Amino acid sequence: MDLNCDVGEAYGKVAPFDEKIMMFLSSCNIACGFHSGDPLTIERTILMALKHKVAIGAHPSYPDLQGFGRRAMQLSKAELFACVRYQVAALKGMTEALGGRLCHVKAHGALYNMAAKNLNLATDFIDAVKSIDSDLKIFGPPKSQLQVVAQTLKMDFVCEVFADRRYEYDLSLRSRHLDYAVITDETEVLEQVRLMVLKKQVQTFEGNVYPIQAETICLHSDTEGAINLAKKIYQLLTQHEINISAP
Amino acid sequence: MDLNCDVGEAYGKVAPFDEKIMMFLSSCNIACGFHSGDPLTIERTILMALKHKVAIGAHPSYPDLQGFGRRAMQLSKAELFACVRYQVAALKGMTEALGGRLCHVKAHGALYNMAAKNLNLATDFIDAVKSIDSDLKIFGPPKSQLQVVAQTLKMDFVCEVFADRRYEYDLSLRSRHLDYAVITDETEVLEQVRLMVLKKQVQTFEGNVYPIQAETICLHSDTEGAINLAKKIYQLLTQHEINISAP
Amino acid sequence: MDLNCDVGEAYGKVAPFDEKIMMFLSSCNIACGFHSGDPLTIERTILMALKHKVAIGAHPSYPDLQGFGRRAMQLSKAELFACVRYQVAALKGMTEALGGRLCHVKAHGALYNMAAKNLNLATDFIDAVKSIDSDLKIFGPPKSQLQVVAQTLKMDFVCEVFADRRYEYDLSLRSRHLDYAVITDETEVLEQVRLMVLKKQVQTFEGNVYPIQAETICLHSDTEGAINLAKKIYQLLTQHEINISAP
Amino acid sequence: MDLNCDVGEAYGKVAPFDEKIMMFLSSCNIACGFHSGDPLTIERTILMALKHKVAIGAHPSYPDLQGFGRRAMQLSKAELFACVRYQVAALKGMTEALGGRLCHVKAHGALYNMAAKNLNLATDFIDAVKSIDSDLKIFGPPKSQLQVVAQTLKMDFVCEVFADRRYEYDLSLRSRHLDYAVITDETEVLEQVRLMVLKKQVQTFEGNVYPIQAETICLHSDTEGAINLAKKIYQLLTQHEINISAP
Repeated sequence: MDLNCDVGEAYGKVAPFDEKIMMFLSSCNIACGFHSGDPLTIERTILMALKHKVAIGAHPSYPDLQGFGRRAMQLSKAELFACVRYQVAALKGMTEALGGRLCHVKAHGALYNMAAKNLNLATDFIDAVKSIDSDLKIFGPPKSQLQVVAQTLKMDFVCEVFADRRYEYDLSLRSRHLDYAVITDETEVLEQVRLMVLKKQVQTFEGNVYPIQAETICLHSDTEGAINLAKKIYQLLTQHEINISAP
Repeated sequence: MDLNCDVGEAYGKVAPFDEKIMMFLSSCNIACGFHSGDPLTIERTILMALKHKVAIGAHPSYPDLQGFGRRAMQLSKAELFACVRYQVAALKGMTEALGGRLCHVKAHGALYNMAAKNLNLATDFIDAVKSIDSDLKIFGPPKSQLQVVAQTLKMDFVCEVFADRRYEYDLSLRSRHLDYAVITDETEVLEQVRLMVLKKQVQTFEGNVYPIQAETICLHSDTEGAINLAKKIYQLLTQHEINISAP
Repeated sequence: MDLNCDVGEAYGKVAPFDEKIMMFLSSCNIACGFHSGDPLTIERTILMALKHKVAIGAHPSYPDLQGFGRRAMQLSKAELFACVRYQVAALKGMTEALGGRLCHVKAHGALYNMAAKNLNLATDFIDAVKSIDSDLKIFGPPKSQLQVVAQTLKMDFVCEVFADRRYEYDLSLRSRHLDYAVITDETEVLEQVRLMVLKKQVQTFEGNVYPIQAETICLHSDTEGAINLAKKIYQLLTQHEINISAP
Repeated sequence: MDLNCDVGEAYGKVAPFDEKIMMFLSSCNIACGFHSGDPLTIERTILMALKHKVAIGAHPSYPDLQGFGRRAMQLSKAELFACVRYQVAALKGMTEALGGRLCHVKAHGALYNMAAKNLNLATDFIDAVKSIDSDLKIFGPPKSQLQVVAQTLKMDFVCEVFADRRYEYDLSLRSRHLDYAVITDETEVLEQVRLMVLKKQVQTFEGNVYPIQAETICLHSDTEGAINLAKKIYQLLTQHEINISAP
């Protein structure tokens, strides 16, 4: 099982909690400058990941610094290609210049959610990533259009689940615009992880239990509480003798 | 002799005259998004250069979209490294994804002028470029700190001269903040090119004639007049049977 | 009849043709920095408008410098309010500091097109403008939701028509994503203006003729050809003894 | 005595600790979008200040989102005027639209430090502020060029001191690039405040004690520790029956 986290999500000021979560991760997704991540923050985050031997991924988004990449945007195919290539190429080149290797790509925010559901967008996104480096793994939700397209385009796909987000009946994430989108109770979060990892199941918002494939779990790093939770998830997995490593 | 031009210098709207100058160029320097050059403009410009078989270079700058990269900025060494790597890596990856190859790097505006005179800045700039790709050629003024450092760091250097800018006694460009910085008379421009290319000399602002090494000439593309001038310089060189090709 | 034009649409470099069109205008819409318009360009454009006694308007847009504000974006109500207020307040304060007065507001690009059709968006947009200054006039398409809402909110509304854009059956502008969106033949453009101004009619893309209310005509300034066309439209109106002045 | 704090310093994500410090403040300085502060963050921060009855100021900076406005930049006089007016006008208009009033302006980062020492820059900065609203108070270091110019231009000036920054012999702040720039020991911070407020003195880095005029004290809000320190400074002043209110 892989544990990943979105990191380097600062612009002008360095994100304060990234260093604390690195020790619990096997993969990290580094913001590329379009929703967050100024160049210096990117380099500091790459160095932190290398120091902790955490696999490095690019975390591209729509060009929306004001909205943290969380707003739906309508880009033409040519614009999307250009935006994705720009970000992934920058991350890949910087990572290699610092002695590392770019391992995967995970779309951010609105781009992640929209590409998960839209076949054309998923195709354009993965095609753009493939044109930069066909060995890059794609992180995305299980059973999403991203998974379908990755298989078609012969790109490795890694099924990502969320420890603290609630799932809808179709295994999509409950929207942040709705109540109960985030699980705030620690016990519930740990129970969701346990169910996903050991039973390969998830209980949806309506209470039904469905099978789900989990290859990487997304953690958060933005508060002290999130760091503590990451630690407990890490301990839960090691107690069950589950190997934590990048895909 | 190489003929180069700064291209892709548009943000949101495509630069109108780039296509018209491409046929006269052997090299072009593509804005990387920090002084100009949104991702779509970058890709369109790369494709235009590939179509016209023009060698592609990156044209990184200080992060100063509002000021078109022409303002002096004080970046720390770490900030400079991150900014240069981000831009050059993005251009390199995008160019390769579109089937081309990045050949050279030319700093833009204030970064070009400051690195030409400041040994530390020149060293950091070229070190950053080298860490992305040690085969990249560095364009810069002859006898500048950029040339000195390129030799020290064993990076290929290409001496750049300007057709329509006036030179000071030390072979630096006359500042745009001063009068007579730009030569506006066509005959004078052609005479300066003739002198530089055939005699390897330049007449400075004070009227003295000094030797100068010219391996690439910088043209402009931002007006109809600039395109016509480029055409005349191109014709001047071909009339003298000087081969126009990338270094 | 008012003649208006979107001006100050440059970022880092000053728009080359703005000065040439000013003499034909009675109103201008100044980009506020979100789709174009760096602060220096804004001030230069305000000064140019004051010199030519052209009424000054703000031209706010979605925050989308890369896409020139032409991409649909999904902003929350709070985000839209904040973005509109920020831009209009900046333009108003700068105009007053330079001795002028802000007269009107015209949304740009995707925001203009979406607010014309969407009641909620039109309401939020005009509410935000009204909270900055309830004397500001709103420019928008006749019979649009912007007109409906302006009346409800008791804000002055000015019906805008386009000289060189084709109209659909419902008097919306034919999308730039479709063919024939722009009328390129000069004679046809002048005929459309004549019909709109003298007969208060427009011939739609399908060929039907409908009544239309025209209080301001939108011109363009981005090429030499556009300037010449503006001149001819100006002459056409003065030949028919139609007074050209701001609303 | 006034207690102020730089707030709204987030871009895309809301600053987490601002709400916690509001209760200890009498004034706040809101980032205007150039070093931080997206429009939604600005509006949320204005509303927070109104709720807590904290006087609202604009906190303009050089256009340097990547560098958090901490890098020296060389702007022309026209560029500086445009940048300062744009930011202050935006804040003033937004504040008034939300039912408040803009009370003061405090430059941020490199602009603050450079204008404190450079007469021309201080003049241009204060002239630009004055052209927006001549009733705005200017916050700046005692005995700085900002104070000198404010008096010349007949603008109200408020002497600002820092609770946790070390002072050099000339009462300038010790540069963040040097060691010991920030006082980290709580007891020392409280002692510096006590000395400044009760004795109107400060002990410089070399250990000498000089007179200093303190009308407002700058606090920080970016960590839990900073909030606790703010609370202690607040308590220290109230224990000595010093009235805490905006100038």
